[in-house]
Amino acid sequence: MNESLINKYIQRTMYLGKRAEGKTSPNPMVGAILVKNGKIIAEGYHHRAGCSHAEIEALNIAGKNAKGSILFTNLEPCCHYGKTPPCTNAIIESGIAAVYCAMKDPNPQVNGKGLKILEDAGIKTRTGFLEDKATFLNKVYIKYITTKIPYVTLKWASSLDGKIATETGESKWITGEVSRKYVHKIRSISDSILAGVGTVIADDPDLTVRHGYRKTLPLVRIIMDEKLQIPRNSKVLRTSKEYPTLIATGKSAAEKYSNEFDPGIKLLTCELNEDGVDPVSLLLSLGKMRITSLLVEGGPKIFASFIKKKLADSIFIILAPRIIGGQSSFSAIASIGYHHLETQSEYRISRFRRLGPDLLLEVYPPGKNICLQA
Amino acid sequence: MNESLINKYIQRTMYLGKRAEGKTSPNPMVGAILVKNGKIIAEGYHHRAGCSHAEIEALNIAGKNAKGSILFTNLEPCCHYGKTPPCTNAIIESGIAAVYCAMKDPNPQVNGKGLKILEDAGIKTRTGFLEDKATFLNKVYIKYITTKIPYVTLKWASSLDGKIATETGESKWITGEVSRKYVHKIRSISDSILAGVGTVIADDPDLTVRHGYRKTLPLVRIIMDEKLQIPRNSKVLRTSKEYPTLIATGKSAAEKYSNEFDPGIKLLTCELNEDGVDPVSLLLSLGKMRITSLLVEGGPKIFASFIKKKLADSIFIILAPRIIGGQSSFSAIASIGYHHLETQSEYRISRFRRLGPDLLLEVYPPGKNICLQA
Repeated sequence: MNESLINKYIQRTMYLGKRAEGKTSPNPMVGAILVKNGKIIAEGYHHRAGCSHAEIEALNIAGKNAKGSILFTNLEPCCHYGKTPPCTNAIIESGIAAVYCAMKDPNPQVNGKGLKILEDAGIKTRTGFLEDKATFLNKVYIKYITTKIPYVTLKWASSLDGKIATETGESKWITGEVSRKYVHKIRSISDSILAGVGTVIADDPDLTVRHGYRKTLPLVRIIMDEKLQIPRNSKVLRTSKEYPTLIATGKSAAEKYSNEFDPGIKLLTCELNEDGVDPVSLLLSLGKMRITSLLVEGGPKIFASFIKKKLADSIFIILAPRIIGGQSSFSAIASIGYHHLETQSEYRISRFRRLGPDLLLEVYPPGKNICLQA
Repeated sequence: MNESLINKYIQRTMYLGKRAEGKTSPNPMVGAILVKNGKIIAEGYHHRAGCSHAEIEALNIAGKNAKGSILFTNLEPCCHYGKTPPCTNAIIESGIAAVYCAMKDPNPQVNGKGLKILEDAGIKTRTGFLEDKATFLNKVYIKYITTKIPYVTLKWASSLDGKIATETGESKWITGEVSRKYVHKIRSISDSILAGVGTVIADDPDLTVRHGYRKTLPLVRIIMDEKLQIPRNSKVLRTSKEYPTLIATGKSAAEKYSNEFDPGIKLLTCELNEDGVDPVSLLLSLGKMRITSLLVEGGPKIFASFIKKKLADSIFIILAPRIIGGQSSFSAIASIGYHHLETQSEYRISRFRRLGPDLLLEVYPPGKNICLQA
């Protein structure tokens, strides 16, 4: 089979896998198709954690007809027992002739072992098709499975001159409706969302998914609040029964004020640094809670604390066509402590497109799509 | 002749006219073609002020063959004596059958009179083809001819968070080489360039056209300097023999310090306002000097003074993929005195594209491409 045909089938598996975007955490998005005599005889994808893997879906559809067919998938089949048995067993039993996948599964429990098992069973395997796209599709999973900390996205909306609020603190609304709706889409595919206590005090946000988007998995709301200064009547605290809510704070504040919070609100004790709650300490804790992705929505000090430590895996910037001006109006990012241009991290403006009258920039660290170290 | 064919020919005239971009000031960019029996028999464009107009170029090429042909042009033929005689005379004499043009010439001396003269001579005329594109092509000319003040472009380069320099004032280089080169292209098609004295003190710029671009007409360098604080050994002053240099200042400073400046340096006395030199007063003076376009390169206070008065006809923003951060690092725009979002002007992100690793945004006031009032 020629490479361009293989790529076409692999592309199709990614399209299928992406149907479950935001629903598979902590699992990857995976699609699978079975091809026999030049025809697709079955398709499947992983719907959510606990459900069948994509390969199993496709094999179930094909039934006995699977025998002799080629399996295409965007990720190496698993070979370990999780919530479901290893896919490699089912593939071998079904009499599949060959397995072509976009990339190896970087999960240390798999990482080539799945393919080896298949090869040992006499199944031909090939890997490395559209690998960049496959990596990008599962960047959250890959980051999490290899580092055990969540994939971090920073998101801010600013004027053309980089201001997120006027001198009087006004920020509603800098961007247009299309952008505001888009933010809820991003939230809907994230495991968790974070804001600093300053943002809670200034804007009293809901930090929920609305605007017609739904969340299959709960969106864990996290407030970074070193001294537990969060207003006790803030929306986030008042809605903690409906939405999981977590406050990342220092040990002494947690001890002092824990009785002031509803038992449904989790006080997460983190290490502190000169800026407040240490983001690395927080990410390690979130990783242990199986939170694979974190959307950071501000404010400037929180962004700065993540940028300083090079913890941003991606940055979404929405630019509105207005100019706010002023040296004392609110800049998107607080001091990151680098005074010279050459010592700063550079980024890559990977994609950009219109969101109504606004512009969305997707920015990534240089070279790779994922920060593989914390 | 059907509309799409007419548009095709009109498009061609704009393509020809644009060949002289930056060379025709204070005249417009105009191209002309003659079509006879479905074939283009001659093409011409206006090379620079003082040279033949586009129509005359085409007529000269066609000679007697022009008789009976159709003239296409992106701007109504002129009917007044300038540096050259009226084109309408030559068109009538040549026996042209019809004249199709993109738009009327908004010059009050023409503005439909050219077409009327042609019609009265029995030549069929039509206008209004690709008028938006034709207006955009000659936005500088149209602004100037209808308002007698220059077309104003603001240009800044910032980090993704809107900073034009670090906390220590470092700004070299925020952007990459492709962007820096592009700035010289913009300079090369502008009649004049402006910087505030703060920028001269901080960066000691040349404000010349380099990087392989050449300027046919001189680029008039303008420093906005209310109190004549410009360092007497700055590059701009040292190179005033080679490049025209003008300092916009207040009356009392001009009287006090005029003897400290080389006679080649023009001190332009302007009205002052709370921010320094009043930009409207400056633009009116520049208009009188037949300067049709002004490129404003900063700094933040200068930008703010133009934005406050809604004097920007276009804004070019170059975004570099880096984050500078900090509330005290230099924001692109100083205070413009609007504290509420609803009272601010909105703009339109008209176009955007990559410049190497950077992103260029072209921003215009809403609705039209030109601010027709000062």
